[in-house]
Amino acid sequence: MEACGLVVEYNPFHYGHQYHLKQARKETDADCMIAVMSGNFLQRGEPAILDKYHRAKAAILGGVDLVVELPYAYAVQNSDHFARGAIETLFHSGVSAVCFGSESGNIAAFTDAYQLQKEHLYAYEANLKRYLNQGFSYPDAATKAYRHISGLSEILDVSQPNNILGLGYVRAIKDAHYPIRPVTIQRIENNYHDTAITGKIASATSIRKEVLTNTSTSASAADSMPDETLQILTSYKQKAGHWHDWELYFPFLKYRVQTMNAAELEQIEGVIEGLEHRIKRTAAEASTFQDWMHALKTKRYTWTRLQRIFVHILTNTKKEEQILGHDTGYVRVLGMNKTGQTYLNQQKKQADLPFITKINQISHPFLQIEERAAKAYYSVLAADKQRNFFLQEMTSPIIVK
Amino acid sequence: MEACGLVVEYNPFHYGHQYHLKQARKETDADCMIAVMSGNFLQRGEPAILDKYHRAKAAILGGVDLVVELPYAYAVQNSDHFARGAIETLFHSGVSAVCFGSESGNIAAFTDAYQLQKEHLYAYEANLKRYLNQGFSYPDAATKAYRHISGLSEILDVSQPNNILGLGYVRAIKDAHYPIRPVTIQRIENNYHDTAITGKIASATSIRKEVLTNTSTSASAADSMPDETLQILTSYKQKAGHWHDWELYFPFLKYRVQTMNAAELEQIEGVIEGLEHRIKRTAAEASTFQDWMHALKTKRYTWTRLQRIFVHILTNTKKEEQILGHDTGYVRVLGMNKTGQTYLNQQKKQADLPFITKINQISHPFLQIEERAAKAYYSVLAADKQRNFFLQEMTSPIIVK
Repeated sequence: MEACGLVVEYNPFHYGHQYHLKQARKETDADCMIAVMSGNFLQRGEPAILDKYHRAKAAILGGVDLVVELPYAYAVQNSDHFARGAIETLFHSGVSAVCFGSESGNIAAFTDAYQLQKEHLYAYEANLKRYLNQGFSYPDAATKAYRHISGLSEILDVSQPNNILGLGYVRAIKDAHYPIRPVTIQRIENNYHDTAITGKIASATSIRKEVLTNTSTSASAADSMPDETLQILTSYKQKAGHWHDWELYFPFLKYRVQTMNAAELEQIEGVIEGLEHRIKRTAAEASTFQDWMHALKTKRYTWTRLQRIFVHILTNTKKEEQILGHDTGYVRVLGMNKTGQTYLNQQKKQADLPFITKINQISHPFLQIEERAAKAYYSVLAADKQRNFFLQEMTSPIIVK
Repeated sequence: MEACGLVVEYNPFHYGHQYHLKQARKETDADCMIAVMSGNFLQRGEPAILDKYHRAKAAILGGVDLVVELPYAYAVQNSDHFARGAIETLFHSGVSAVCFGSESGNIAAFTDAYQLQKEHLYAYEANLKRYLNQGFSYPDAATKAYRHISGLSEILDVSQPNNILGLGYVRAIKDAHYPIRPVTIQRIENNYHDTAITGKIASATSIRKEVLTNTSTSASAADSMPDETLQILTSYKQKAGHWHDWELYFPFLKYRVQTMNAAELEQIEGVIEGLEHRIKRTAAEASTFQDWMHALKTKRYTWTRLQRIFVHILTNTKKEEQILGHDTGYVRVLGMNKTGQTYLNQQKKQADLPFITKINQISHPFLQIEERAAKAYYSVLAADKQRNFFLQEMTSPIIVK
């Protein structure tokens, strides 16, 4: 069996993902579609609306065959590390192709950009450093440095976050010489609504309205959710009492920062350049999470970078854990269907790393982080619910017949 | 002016305190009654129902002239350290007498017991150690060790918590050779209700009913609160939105424990003998604070000792801060009336330590702890209220005209 990998967060699963899946299956002729998915905290430094198990289930119902977890150590990081961790996880899952969305749908733009960067690596890095020193954020500095080396004939618009990620996947594959074919599919945003879909949507209007009112989901995103996703959203809220967003965590985050001294805060992953003082100073005045972010934000520190730091504070993730300094030691399966099961059974015989499901199945520094992250994620639920939700980490993966 | 000191928590102020004050004034003929009062967290390891400023105000309205703060470092400790810190603070406040309540009202019982313990110190400590090794809690082991040396002629019932505290005050005065006269007044529990008081009580029945329903205050305690205390209780709840109790802090405490590893937990003040593992193990199952305490409680670890550890976890107070290893560097005034002001102005000229009011007035390790403790205490309030309540720490003391 051949497998194709996708890198996703599924927060939550929508028709765009379904379209992407179908196209990827067609392009790669793969038997098994594997999604490597962020856990409870996302790359933008946000809690996912639903926990990873419910998002995995929605993805499988939407057409994914196997969902594996992108470890927190890679998921809550800048796009370079995120991309590298995702590709490594997919490689160890045995994929022969990786498919990602892009504006152009032209893979040559990515492979050429990769070659260009590689050939001018010295100039690129010198310029990157220069722009960083001038106070630009990492994404802005990287875009400017890239434009410098590409001159007038810009082959890839790296100011687009999705293009940065795509280039990251290509780089991770090529740098490691993985036998994986990178594939890109042109993204469609609002043009995939055929009448069949519109018909389906109508049947779930009330749920969609609730999703819109209670989450930061945009109208077009809510419109594009399959009934299965909407049902999972609703049942999660019934079971958990909440959809998760930063404001729910704000009291915990503020309490935590206000009972740490600056030296302790400085030990947290991502807290550099005296940011600990700025975070402490702004904490007392903040009445909401949004308030606090606006008080913290500067040109140098992007919104997402600051949010990732807040996730690390919330989960007590420290520099001394060297979260990027460990080898991937396992592939963790969150859920699958029958195809995924067949693929997994075949793959287990030839895989170089163990496939695990339970958090306590083996011992690995990443799994200690997953445990803390899961406990922090469920902290906002009623005490008696926390335990049941956490138990998912210790039991079998989601299996969709 | 002569001053008499009292050691109190005033959680909240009641007629028993008022009676005690009057008797102490009579016995010592003092011009100024000084109360050294625990801050937001009490010796039993509990958040006070009201913050220290509101409790100080109630105390002054009830007859205290000057309220000074017992630093957290002493307040949230066993009775020996609590008593020592309280007496030190009162000594630096310039008192010539200290008055405490007891069952017998006989000071000789305390001074004799002190002499007896001192004379048989070696035997006492050997026995104490033996009983501790047998798994008895500190209070139980101390009682048994004391009975050993006192033989049949027991002169003080040290199984009574109030007697242990009284003996602690006497010991702290005598060991340090402070020129302070210890005085004890017989406690009255339910026999101080004269008709005048009963008349007053009737006027505040509805508030009292609310206090009873919403706090762990007993009926007799609520009956015994002056109108001023009841009004302060009510206005605090209106302003803050809550009266404070452990269950309010439970989500924060549980979140905190579940995102710490055992090694970090072991660094917290009071966490010894592998208790970190027991605390972590019991955290996941606990649905309420009471649940958790019942799961943790053993013969060796008293309820109050475990609660104090929970306060240290909540306030992130660590062993490395050596909270008992610092000299008292200041006396902090929380509130006063005109008499207290006159006394303070006189005392300032001859005092060996500065009298301070604001948390940022001088730099001292104790004040860093007070800041964290105040922020942790107010964490359960709405975010916009936290800031206003904390501002009290930075402003002038309560002055009652």
